[in-house]
Amino acid sequence: MFRSHTCGELRTEHIGHEVTLAGWVHRRRDHGELIFLDLRDRYGITQVVFDSITAMAHKVAEESRSEYVLQIRGRVRARPAEAVNPHLGTGTIEVEALEAEVLNPSRTTPIYIAQEGGEDEMIRLKYRYLDLRRERMQRNLILRHRVIKFMRDFLDQEGFLEIETPILIKSTPEGARDYLVPSRVHPGKFYALPQSPQQLKQLLMVAGYDRYFQVARCFRDEDLRADRQPEFTQLDMEMSFVDQEDVIQLIERLFIELCRAVVPHKHVPTPFPRLTYAEALARYGSDKPDLRYGLELINLSDLLTATPFQVFQQALANSGEVKGLCIPGCGSYSRKQIDELTEFAKIGGARGLAWAIVPADGGEVRSSFGKNLGEGEMSAIVERMAAKPGDLLLIVADQPSVVAAALDRLRREFAQRLKLADPNTLNFSWVLDFPLVEWNEDEARWDAVHHPFTAPQDADMHLMATDPGKVRAKAYDLVLNGYEAGGGSIRIHRRDVQQQLFDLLGITPELAQAQFGHMLEAFEYGAPPHGGIAPGIDRIVMILADESTIREVMAFPKTQQAVDLMTAAPSPVDERQLKELHINLR
Amino acid sequence: MFRSHTCGELRTEHIGHEVTLAGWVHRRRDHGELIFLDLRDRYGITQVVFDSITAMAHKVAEESRSEYVLQIRGRVRARPAEAVNPHLGTGTIEVEALEAEVLNPSRTTPIYIAQEGGEDEMIRLKYRYLDLRRERMQRNLILRHRVIKFMRDFLDQEGFLEIETPILIKSTPEGARDYLVPSRVHPGKFYALPQSPQQLKQLLMVAGYDRYFQVARCFRDEDLRADRQPEFTQLDMEMSFVDQEDVIQLIERLFIELCRAVVPHKHVPTPFPRLTYAEALARYGSDKPDLRYGLELINLSDLLTATPFQVFQQALANSGEVKGLCIPGCGSYSRKQIDELTEFAKIGGARGLAWAIVPADGGEVRSSFGKNLGEGEMSAIVERMAAKPGDLLLIVADQPSVVAAALDRLRREFAQRLKLADPNTLNFSWVLDFPLVEWNEDEARWDAVHHPFTAPQDADMHLMATDPGKVRAKAYDLVLNGYEAGGGSIRIHRRDVQQQLFDLLGITPELAQAQFGHMLEAFEYGAPPHGGIAPGIDRIVMILADESTIREVMAFPKTQQAVDLMTAAPSPVDERQLKELHINLR
Repeated sequence: MFRSHTCGELRTEHIGHEVTLAGWVHRRRDHGELIFLDLRDRYGITQVVFDSITAMAHKVAEESRSEYVLQIRGRVRARPAEAVNPHLGTGTIEVEALEAEVLNPSRTTPIYIAQEGGEDEMIRLKYRYLDLRRERMQRNLILRHRVIKFMRDFLDQEGFLEIETPILIKSTPEGARDYLVPSRVHPGKFYALPQSPQQLKQLLMVAGYDRYFQVARCFRDEDLRADRQPEFTQLDMEMSFVDQEDVIQLIERLFIELCRAVVPHKHVPTPFPRLTYAEALARYGSDKPDLRYGLELINLSDLLTATPFQVFQQALANSGEVKGLCIPGCGSYSRKQIDELTEFAKIGGARGLAWAIVPADGGEVRSSFGKNLGEGEMSAIVERMAAKPGDLLLIVADQPSVVAAALDRLRREFAQRLKLADPNTLNFSWVLDFPLVEWNEDEARWDAVHHPFTAPQDADMHLMATDPGKVRAKAYDLVLNGYEAGGGSIRIHRRDVQQQLFDLLGITPELAQAQFGHMLEAFEYGAPPHGGIAPGIDRIVMILADESTIREVMAFPKTQQAVDLMTAAPSPVDERQLKELHINLR
Repeated sequence: MFRSHTCGELRTEHIGHEVTLAGWVHRRRDHGELIFLDLRDRYGITQVVFDSITAMAHKVAEESRSEYVLQIRGRVRARPAEAVNPHLGTGTIEVEALEAEVLNPSRTTPIYIAQEGGEDEMIRLKYRYLDLRRERMQRNLILRHRVIKFMRDFLDQEGFLEIETPILIKSTPEGARDYLVPSRVHPGKFYALPQSPQQLKQLLMVAGYDRYFQVARCFRDEDLRADRQPEFTQLDMEMSFVDQEDVIQLIERLFIELCRAVVPHKHVPTPFPRLTYAEALARYGSDKPDLRYGLELINLSDLLTATPFQVFQQALANSGEVKGLCIPGCGSYSRKQIDELTEFAKIGGARGLAWAIVPADGGEVRSSFGKNLGEGEMSAIVERMAAKPGDLLLIVADQPSVVAAALDRLRREFAQRLKLADPNTLNFSWVLDFPLVEWNEDEARWDAVHHPFTAPQDADMHLMATDPGKVRAKAYDLVLNGYEAGGGSIRIHRRDVQQQLFDLLGITPELAQAQFGHMLEAFEYGAPPHGGIAPGIDRIVMILADESTIREVMAFPKTQQAVDLMTAAPSPVDERQLKELHINLR
């Protein structure tokens, strides 16, 4: 038996007991005759005192250094009153060492475990097994375990079955780039790793499983912009005989109860607010707005129909719009600061940024464009934007998508600067009524916004032939604090509707047969109405853990270059292996 | 709302209620004025009666065929006494249809859902979404869900954390063949899919996670002899500060409680019997013996040290042995039947099979070798084998490994023929004290029996240099009804011992660095003593479900040729995809 108790277990009630502990040397304070070691394991820290009277044990303590693995037999005693540590579960006691053994020594670690370093993340990833010893990382992985355990328990209670689907599947040209796996047995053929189990979960509905879920590993070989990983985990779900409202209600209950269980100190507004896609873009410039704060986009277009200002005039003439943000209390921004904001907005695609300041002292509005405006237009703008003295107004005139992107960027930037978002609020919301298809300018055809199995809304079916861009889909996104937390839809379950959509997307019967033949065939044997959703677990845990990248909530993440720095993957392989797989390097 | 109740839910208490059901037409009986449809979903079957008085609904029933998806509004009523079906949960009631709608029609299905077919398995795999509608497959997948859920709940209660490890990892030359994934970002480099998360779980112990588990997908690109799949699922576990007994005790509790919960009608002998590897081979000829029955191998070597029979004599002279099985009640076997057994034993590697029959009528022993024996040898054999009148004795003389293989094969064959194994018993057992290394004749070197991180037993450390073949490992296999249900070991946690084993295995420091550098380095920063095990979930569920292949307990298995017949994977890919991955076909 290596230990009688963990390092987080001993309390006042154990005083006088003889115990055996095992763990890592967290900190060491050497006072000569007396040496104090903080012994650490996943469960906590216990202070162990080595007196030179117990010479053998004292010698072990003398030789020990940080991160040595020790086994200690000792007696629990009360700490002197002045040494009690109220921040530590074991803070009222200490262990007087009687015997000690070094189970394993440690070299000096390249990162310091007992305290957060400011070291480069590359070092943390290379020595991930050391980084993972840190309290923060352990807290994150324990939270992740609890979140996923809660999801499974909840869904099991609700009658869902977890069903494992294969990782080696057929490559489909849809969506992002597949990771491919050459077949050894079938020369020239390849498996793909799933971007999601989308088709398989729909086939499970055809098979009558009614309520399916899986904590599913998914793979996308994308350029790792932003905070992406080559593999990620989603709570993949699908239900039969449901409509959109059934899925929404279930997910809402799941996340409300989950947050209550694992992050009870966080505030979750309920019911989750709902926005249409059109409304989200109009009010926030984003289909995943952070609703923890206002700072809404204000439409000024109708005030400026007759403006002499060419920039506004031209935008409106080209079916564009003029919209702005009223930034409270930033009227003291310098010209240099505003120039920086303009550059920032330009990264978002805007050609420029019009600005106006309502002076705090009640003086006249200063602006970049006032002199070009017509009579009364500036006061109409100030009134519409409910600008108060000391506010900064930022205005973009362009195509709606450009205006939305630029102002969304500015809105999020100012939420950070002004600390508008309460870090202890989890604002879940729904974005509904996504368009079914969007026009692809480059290829001059309609593309599916969600995927080609998403059902159109019944009320819009008559527009499929005449005005497909106006057809809304039975698609819904779960948004959390400005992140997409999961997307889902009701699927097409009738072949005639599926055919209609394929026709619209320019997918010929031959192509459909080649790519989705098994799906189309399955749908001819009694497919039930069904739909689902797939919340992204990495991102949700990241937000619950107050972290800013998903790498902090994954045990062994890869870099932005898709490299595992710890094991040095990917790596070259033997010629023999390539030969077996019937491939050559180019 | 698509339904008010499932098809398995209605009982006598619902009589008089108006309900809405949705499901598949399971069976249809058309009596003209009256049509009876059995409506099916995952939860059960409900009989729905369509009377021609409700003309619209009756018309839907008339048009419906097997596997149509229907929605029905109706009234629950008692069945006439003579129509009550005690085998059906809903057998006391039926639903009188008031309205009906075809949600989706179905073509005639290529396999019949309502009854087990005798159709070719290839058809079942091609139309897996139909095969999975069958009650047996639904029962199997529900059992699988419950088994895995139980494991997770149990381990969570025991303080284990489930931690996800990556699927895209570094290729290692150890063990079976890796599936490889070409990197797009790093030309000429490859990821591998994990054969198991072995290294990563050990690194999690180095990281202090103390108790880890994962329901882990594993991949082996092997020739799919026997009942293997390219991907399979194991309950991957690892614990720190434990010895072999801790792992065994925990696993034993897990499986006892699991079986009690999910297969309460099965008998589980406890505590699990334990055999050493040497004992298992000696008594059963196998390191995974089925202990539900005896039929042990009986060693005759010591009786025959002076035999004149050349076959026995030569085997014993070449450090071989003579062992046999006493098959009860098979003394009536014909010469032809015995010849077939000889051929059967030869497949197992034996050069021949000696046989003897103790006649049921008490006459003299007949045998293939009696005339060659010395005085009293036959009676000594009969006595040693405790043969009774009517028994058949089968004897093999050869090298121990050949004797074991041949008699194991015969033992299992006769267990089947004589139905010796109780199908309602789950006989878990432990095989312990595996050798650490075995001599590889072909390559003239020592190979690790388990893997190169397995710890030698402390008592045998002194043999490492002098007689390595005698060193026993801290390795243990969980065996269930003659299948290996999981293998595990205590790992080496000290670099000096690891070095000693690498030296023995002929792994040079350079090679060790290239292959396991990150592991060796990690072990220098305070690795705790640790060990684990990895029960195979597919096989265990197969046995609990009384199935004979793991394909029956996987939703979407592949064929022996590693093909997914449903989606036709693997498949050719675009030249563009190959180019992006920097590979050519050979």
